[in-house]
Amino acid sequence: MNAPLRIGIAGLGTVGAEVARLLQTEGELLAQRGGRPLRLAGVSARRRDKARAITLDGLPWFEDPRDLARAQDLDVMVELIGGADGVAREVVETALAHGKHVVTANKALLAHHGAALARMADAAGLALNYEAAVAGGIPIVKAMREGLAANRISRVFGILNGTCNYVLSAMETSGRPFAEVLAEAQSLGYAEADPATDIGGLDTAHKLTILTSLAFGAAVDLAGVHVEGIARVSAADIAFARELGYRIKLLGIASRSEAGIAQRVHPCLVPLDSPIADVNGVLNGVVVEGECVGQVMFEGRGAGGGPTASAVLADLIDLARGRRLDVFTVPGAALAPAASVPMAAHVGAYYVRLSVLDQPGVMAALATAFARQEVSIDSLIQRGRAPGEAVAVVLVTHETEETAMCRALREIESFKPVLEPPCMIRIEKL
Amino acid sequence: MNAPLRIGIAGLGTVGAEVARLLQTEGELLAQRGGRPLRLAGVSARRRDKARAITLDGLPWFEDPRDLARAQDLDVMVELIGGADGVAREVVETALAHGKHVVTANKALLAHHGAALARMADAAGLALNYEAAVAGGIPIVKAMREGLAANRISRVFGILNGTCNYVLSAMETSGRPFAEVLAEAQSLGYAEADPATDIGGLDTAHKLTILTSLAFGAAVDLAGVHVEGIARVSAADIAFARELGYRIKLLGIASRSEAGIAQRVHPCLVPLDSPIADVNGVLNGVVVEGECVGQVMFEGRGAGGGPTASAVLADLIDLARGRRLDVFTVPGAALAPAASVPMAAHVGAYYVRLSVLDQPGVMAALATAFARQEVSIDSLIQRGRAPGEAVAVVLVTHETEETAMCRALREIESFKPVLEPPCMIRIEKL
Repeated sequence: MNAPLRIGIAGLGTVGAEVARLLQTEGELLAQRGGRPLRLAGVSARRRDKARAITLDGLPWFEDPRDLARAQDLDVMVELIGGADGVAREVVETALAHGKHVVTANKALLAHHGAALARMADAAGLALNYEAAVAGGIPIVKAMREGLAANRISRVFGILNGTCNYVLSAMETSGRPFAEVLAEAQSLGYAEADPATDIGGLDTAHKLTILTSLAFGAAVDLAGVHVEGIARVSAADIAFARELGYRIKLLGIASRSEAGIAQRVHPCLVPLDSPIADVNGVLNGVVVEGECVGQVMFEGRGAGGGPTASAVLADLIDLARGRRLDVFTVPGAALAPAASVPMAAHVGAYYVRLSVLDQPGVMAALATAFARQEVSIDSLIQRGRAPGEAVAVVLVTHETEETAMCRALREIESFKPVLEPPCMIRIEKL
Repeated sequence: MNAPLRIGIAGLGTVGAEVARLLQTEGELLAQRGGRPLRLAGVSARRRDKARAITLDGLPWFEDPRDLARAQDLDVMVELIGGADGVAREVVETALAHGKHVVTANKALLAHHGAALARMADAAGLALNYEAAVAGGIPIVKAMREGLAANRISRVFGILNGTCNYVLSAMETSGRPFAEVLAEAQSLGYAEADPATDIGGLDTAHKLTILTSLAFGAAVDLAGVHVEGIARVSAADIAFARELGYRIKLLGIASRSEAGIAQRVHPCLVPLDSPIADVNGVLNGVVVEGECVGQVMFEGRGAGGGPTASAVLADLIDLARGRRLDVFTVPGAALAPAASVPMAAHVGAYYVRLSVLDQPGVMAALATAFARQEVSIDSLIQRGRAPGEAVAVVLVTHETEETAMCRALREIESFKPVLEPPCMIRIEKL
């Protein structure tokens, strides 16, 4: 048997403790899969005495994870601390600077510093593996870096945040409003006490930048992502979408055209018969569109100790086997920023819901406002009749330019019979 | 740049010609992905002068693919001839005997001779890669051998034949009978002129044996697969299943228990809200259940030149990178036959449709026959009333033993008011 792969873990939360537990209890399986033993050589966490399902007895303990990252008898550093900067970043940089491979689940770190870290790792011939950073247990990084490597990728999109998907699914199933469902998700442990990063779309954006970089071999570009969250999606929108043959999902979408790379995170109406529409509850789903392969979809649990540990261990097994690849499919030195296509250049169909006073002439005024911006309306439906009172008007447009759409909505918002800011959700062709 | 990977292709049908075309036209992309050029070094096919989308000018041509397989200036042989024996097998064996890696899309060959070929390849330190043999462009082999390598797998199942899935989906959508839909599928090119291997379930069985071997590290065992096709599924069954909250799919299912490995291919009622129920049309879908990761589903096109070429080229890129793994996750020498659990040992719920004379006492007689075999009925519904004429009776059982079910059905079939052999379809817990 070959020499063991010596592994350090920084961060012993849910994921770190599960990785450590599996290294301790599944040694035989992992050694067979990796071709040599995977040995836990040292750990570091904020508190040594916290109750965990593992024993730390006999394991070298490091008060400072940066010391672990530069330890002599270490081959790979597993960073499970989290956060875009601070200790996590220092640990990863220290490890790479000291010739250690790195495995991380830290999407915020990669979204902010992925290009620089990739250049550092690739230049040193070290691995920076991050299967666990996107879509938990789904082996999407391996699929894109290896399984679909023969394909030019035109688009990658997905449901990358289980909290948002749970909330949207539960709103559809129960018909209840956003705030109520979110509170329930928090009590069930499906949403954080501070859910802003999830609900606001930033977590999805972090993961999307990684998929973008993988798909197109471009430098990670978080600033180039247009981000909207799900807080403004109402139960009414979900019900109307359903009637129109759609479901509302928070998608991260990256696509390449001659103009450059577009990255966007926002709620979308997706056709009910598209595979991604069936990814419900806390599940994640990613669709990759390759030139040869067409659309391939991957679906599974995007978070949790087990699935995330599965991804971390797969990365470690690859390292045990001596397999190393450029971090983002091209050598770090060749990772260049790509032109970022702004949201204003988007062209697509739109769903709009308005709350208007039911009075003569309103529909004509709306239609005229859209016509003035050359927004072509596919259907315009008033729901119910209540003369002199508020009614919902729902409309779906043909493909149109985002800028024209925004101009039309600004004009409409100023109409007196329009009682609330319009709710606009993009319709996605999948 | 490193020395090129020298590739020979035997068989220039749809897939072979597409692989050759991509090697000729996507040289730069493939060299970047593989870390060195992928060079087409020789080809062989039945007819040199057949019209193809590629040019064979300047390519070494071999009348006999076995000569190509032993050519001196070759690193890897791509076998795309097909068939469990004959030339395809000889080409693969010749290549391995002469120190060449092998890439194949040949599921029949692996289903019949996979264990022997794996032993040969592993003993020689050669790769036998077969991503294209299961589920076309979906990188399921890589996912199971690498991406989910940290998991003990308890079950793998999937829709592995696009023809069957197209036929069942079209029957549901149109309400038309099997024979009519099959004829249409043939005219559209979705079914072969001789569809027996697809429709009868054998093609699914071939692919299942490969997934089984991958999942459990056991020798490929085609004889251990229980195989039923879809020809007996009627439009009525599809409609009744739908009413009951199910969809009918032809699944290949492999599971491991203390008793051994069960492998079965048969039509199944799957819950409408299970992810696999949404894999429709010609698409394939595979679900892997791992101890850490839970269920992960992979969905995409299971056949066709582009998707299959995508898989073949991914295998070649792995070889260019010098990545080689044991064929079925454990060394060939350790590949042992596992105990095969016979279909008679199956326990599950069942759907049964009977055509009976609508006369007093029939329902009581049916219920009694099931009770005698201790088959517990969940619901027993007579559809419509037509005294003295044929009516459909549909029933769903609780979990029961296959042997008890078969005894009950044999008894019922002998009843005079039962006009046709009962239609039994297993209900699958997913």
